Amino acid sequence: MNKSRYEAGYEKLTEIDGEAGHNVIESLKDVCPDLARYTIEFPFGDIYAREGLDLKSREIATIAALTALGNCQPQLKVHINAALNVGCTVKEVKETVLQMCVYAGFPAALNGMFVVKEVLTERGLL
Amino acid sequence: MNKSRYEAGYEKLTEIDGEAGHNVIESLKDVCPDLARYTIEFPFGDIYAREGLDLKSREIATIAALTALGNCQPQLKVHINAALNVGCTVKEVKETVLQMCVYAGFPAALNGMFVVKEVLTERGLL
Amino acid sequence: MNKSRYEAGYEKLTEIDGEAGHNVIESLKDVCPDLARYTIEFPFGDIYAREGLDLKSREIATIAALTALGNCQPQLKVHINAALNVGCTVKEVKETVLQMCVYAGFPAALNGMFVVKEVLTERGLL
Amino acid sequence: MNKSRYEAGYEKLTEIDGEAGHNVIESLKDVCPDLARYTIEFPFGDIYAREGLDLKSREIATIAALTALGNCQPQLKVHINAALNVGCTVKEVKETVLQMCVYAGFPAALNGMFVVKEVLTERGLL
Amino acid sequence: MNKSRYEAGYEKLTEIDGEAGHNVIESLKDVCPDLARYTIEFPFGDIYAREGLDLKSREIATIAALTALGNCQPQLKVHINAALNVGCTVKEVKETVLQMCVYAGFPAALNGMFVVKEVLTERGLL
Amino acid sequence: MNKSRYEAGYEKLTEIDGEAGHNVIESLKDVCPDLARYTIEFPFGDIYAREGLDLKSREIATIAALTALGNCQPQLKVHINAALNVGCTVKEVKETVLQMCVYAGFPAALNGMFVVKEVLTERGLL
Repeated sequence: MNKSRYEAGYEKLTEIDGEAGHNVIESLKDVCPDLARYTIEFPFGDIYAREGLDLKSREIATIAALTALGNCQPQLKVHINAALNVGCTVKEVKETVLQMCVYAGFPAALNGMFVVKEVLTERGLL
Repeated sequence: MNKSRYEAGYEKLTEIDGEAGHNVIESLKDVCPDLARYTIEFPFGDIYAREGLDLKSREIATIAALTALGNCQPQLKVHINAALNVGCTVKEVKETVLQMCVYAGFPAALNGMFVVKEVLTERGLL
Repeated sequence: MNKSRYEAGYEKLTEIDGEAGHNVIESLKDVCPDLARYTIEFPFGDIYAREGLDLKSREIATIAALTALGNCQPQLKVHINAALNVGCTVKEVKETVLQMCVYAGFPAALNGMFVVKEVLTERGLL
Repeated sequence: MNKSRYEAGYEKLTEIDGEAGHNVIESLKDVCPDLARYTIEFPFGDIYAREGLDLKSREIATIAALTALGNCQPQLKVHINAALNVGCTVKEVKETVLQMCVYAGFPAALNGMFVVKEVLTERGLL
Repeated sequence: MNKSRYEAGYEKLTEIDGEAGHNVIESLKDVCPDLARYTIEFPFGDIYAREGLDLKSREIATIAALTALGNCQPQLKVHINAALNVGCTVKEVKETVLQMCVYAGFPAALNGMFVVKEVLTERGLL
Repeated sequence: MNKSRYEAGYEKLTEIDGEAGHNVIESLKDVCPDLARYTIEFPFGDIYAREGLDLKSREIATIAALTALGNCQPQLKVHINAALNVGCTVKEVKETVLQMCVYAGFPAALNGMFVVKEVLTERGLL
């Protein structure tokens, strides 16, 4: 195990996803701890730690992609929370999801917006 | 035809996509002018004209989605140009595409990066 | 807001989707009323209001697409109801979903057919 | 080999896809003749031969699905021709593709429309 | 109805999917028995009965595809069970799902692994 | 840069993909060398280097996924070659692609088979 990538990734995961991220990692521990480790090392240790694109923009990119793909709503929920954690406004999150009706169709945008609604409700913002 | 949405959209299309956008519209004129009109009115007149998310972030969201979907490379090419037109740095565009290896897999990111390469070559930036 | 597109769309939504459509619109009111408005104006006010393809054929096209995409079952449910509302027979709906095993694989067709089953059960037709 | 399904499928393929369909079958002969045989037996011998949905509606469903999926343009081209062969009007084909901007986004609809343009040009209809 | 394809398929379905497969077939009986019949005849009677690729490899291919597509989790669950039924080790199943993070992204691999977890828990293997 | 992951990945890439893999890496050098490095380190250094699933099965899983996704034909071509390089028979490759008509539809399987045809022709095997 590469300590430094793992440690950098773990800090980044904590900064971005908070408890929700740790829950995902925890839930993988019994079935496939290596997938938990790779999730920390590669996306968080390698990619989110990179310079050249600020964390707010990275989360906007992720929310756009997950809304458009439309088949990974648990991850979309984590990253809507993450976007708000790293400083995106509620309006920026909604606009990103809304814009996906152009690129992935209205059903994808609607289903993404219902995840936004769920997150905002849980955070007492709606 | 709704003049004001069309006119607002046409200006936005010109601002964002420049000649490439007009080429798409032009190429639809004989087969389905209404699709050309809707493309101007709805994505550009309604969505890109909205407040709450700046144009740079909108293009990052679009590039992320189109890279992740992986089946609309002509549009990805238009929007990589658009991102550079509205002020994204080359580095921001590359980072957005690169990040998609996490959410849509390495083939999607690789194919997106080859479109970046094509655009940068055409613009004399590579 | 474009009154006439909105009004035409609202009537079309009522004609096609009935209560289910209104529920979707209602559930967007607090989180993103503009997405509700666009959903009425563009798909229903612009597209479904067009001539050249009758409503039954439009619903068959929509059911086919949503079954094939496979990641928008709430919308598939709305449009299976819509198809029956605008005069498609139960048999035509089933045949459309069944045919998708050819173009999107058996899992997509099976999952679509289970939504048909849910709708028919709710309508007392099974 | 099930003679009757194969024969029924071959006739149906000829009726619907004409030369284009036979070219697909022919091009599989050296690499995987069994895939050619299954393509005749199952989609054409089993599915398109069914009652309950007329051939025009079946082609509208197929065009909608292939446009929405967005990654099978050779098959979309065959079925745009097929739709015209079995009696769909050019307008019905265009409307079906256009409508997909609602369900799969504008890039999918645009790319589908460019295939329509290609087919209409080849048939001398544009 | 082609007795021999149906019978061969039914035996193969029983060998591979056991009770879970029969439940799928049973649940289609009232809404679309022909889809049940085709599911037995074509995937199981025609494809899984073929030589040239052993059943373990066929299930690895299926698990990979369903994890990557990401929108057919009920079928993924059936085929994770099927893989274990025909002799794949738990480790082989996990590795197949894990590998999909490379080709379809981490969300697809994570969601696939949670289905593995569900199956292993039900089988008392976790 | 993690030397050992990179070096292990480079060896694995050479073993599996040969010249085609190196061409991909080479073509990324000017536009995004970090994506080239990650492609070596993560898929090849981390994933393909793992135990628990032999290389032949890993390539079958990859071919299945790429055929089913249907939007990454350059990578499918590389991995059809890779499968043959690591000991899969031509028949096993064809069967894997053929089987995808069940899970992702006939267009995906047909388009995958045409890539098989291209590879076999280039290798003088057809």
